[in-house]
Amino acid sequence: MKKKIVSYFEDVVPGMSVEFGRYRMSEEEIMTFARAYDPQPFHTGRESARNSVVGELIASGWHTCAVAMRMIVDHFNPAESILASPGVDEIRWLVPVRPGDELSVRLTILDARESQSKPDRGIFRIRTEVFNQNREIVLTFTSVNIMRKRPVPA
Amino acid sequence: MKKKIVSYFEDVVPGMSVEFGRYRMSEEEIMTFARAYDPQPFHTGRESARNSVVGELIASGWHTCAVAMRMIVDHFNPAESILASPGVDEIRWLVPVRPGDELSVRLTILDARESQSKPDRGIFRIRTEVFNQNREIVLTFTSVNIMRKRPVPA
Repeated sequence: MKKKIVSYFEDVVPGMSVEFGRYRMSEEEIMTFARAYDPQPFHTGRESARNSVVGELIASGWHTCAVAMRMIVDHFNPAESILASPGVDEIRWLVPVRPGDELSVRLTILDARESQSKPDRGIFRIRTEVFNQNREIVLTFTSVNIMRKRPVPA
Repeated sequence: MKKKIVSYFEDVVPGMSVEFGRYRMSEEEIMTFARAYDPQPFHTGRESARNSVVGELIASGWHTCAVAMRMIVDHFNPAESILASPGVDEIRWLVPVRPGDELSVRLTILDARESQSKPDRGIFRIRTEVFNQNREIVLTFTSVNIMRKRPVPA
């Protein structure tokens, strides 16, 4: 199992900011995702996009969210301690993502607190920013996350 | 092009509520999505899920969002008038989505107003609720949407 930036809730410190990832958005992947999940003409192909209200091929916003998640799982989320997230707030698609764009992620820990009801875990919020290769912020969102505390040696 | 529930901004009425869709979440699709975009052990396979912090295979929350979008595009979003969304708020994954679940969508129009800066379009917010086959609400979110007004005959 690949070593991640944090291992347990105790490693999550408010104010901490980390950057990672490099994900190239190919035209083929943009179209494949869109045909499955967001088949609007400006996502599904160059030709249909050109004739659409948008005028060019751009990635589905949900696709960009999914790619951000992939980078977060690869680099940040520890498999042994992260639990399913209850939710995400304030998704903003700020700049279109186009074929050939290379995306990366910056996470900033907004706050962290121990769970009141379940003493083996903590709750924290992350601000996620996704950049393209020109350092434009293309996507931001804030997630609520739950992570186990470091096990106490028996 | 398939006829949708609405065609132009004038058809979008606050308080309007519509239900549609039927999407079966297969185990194979859950694993395929997760391996591409959310490779956490409780999403990628039955065996890894059983040994994970969650204990069973559940769909990635981003996958459920993508499937909701697919149903919204199929039934609601008119290709000739919908524009890219600026954002989504308050995503809440309330109940795990499991292999074999059948999902459907209810949309409720929260509000609608004409654009101040661009008189050819309007802006409205939608509350999306995703149900499983037991009528449990598995996912909710609120989206901001932009749609063109009906063209004025020349």
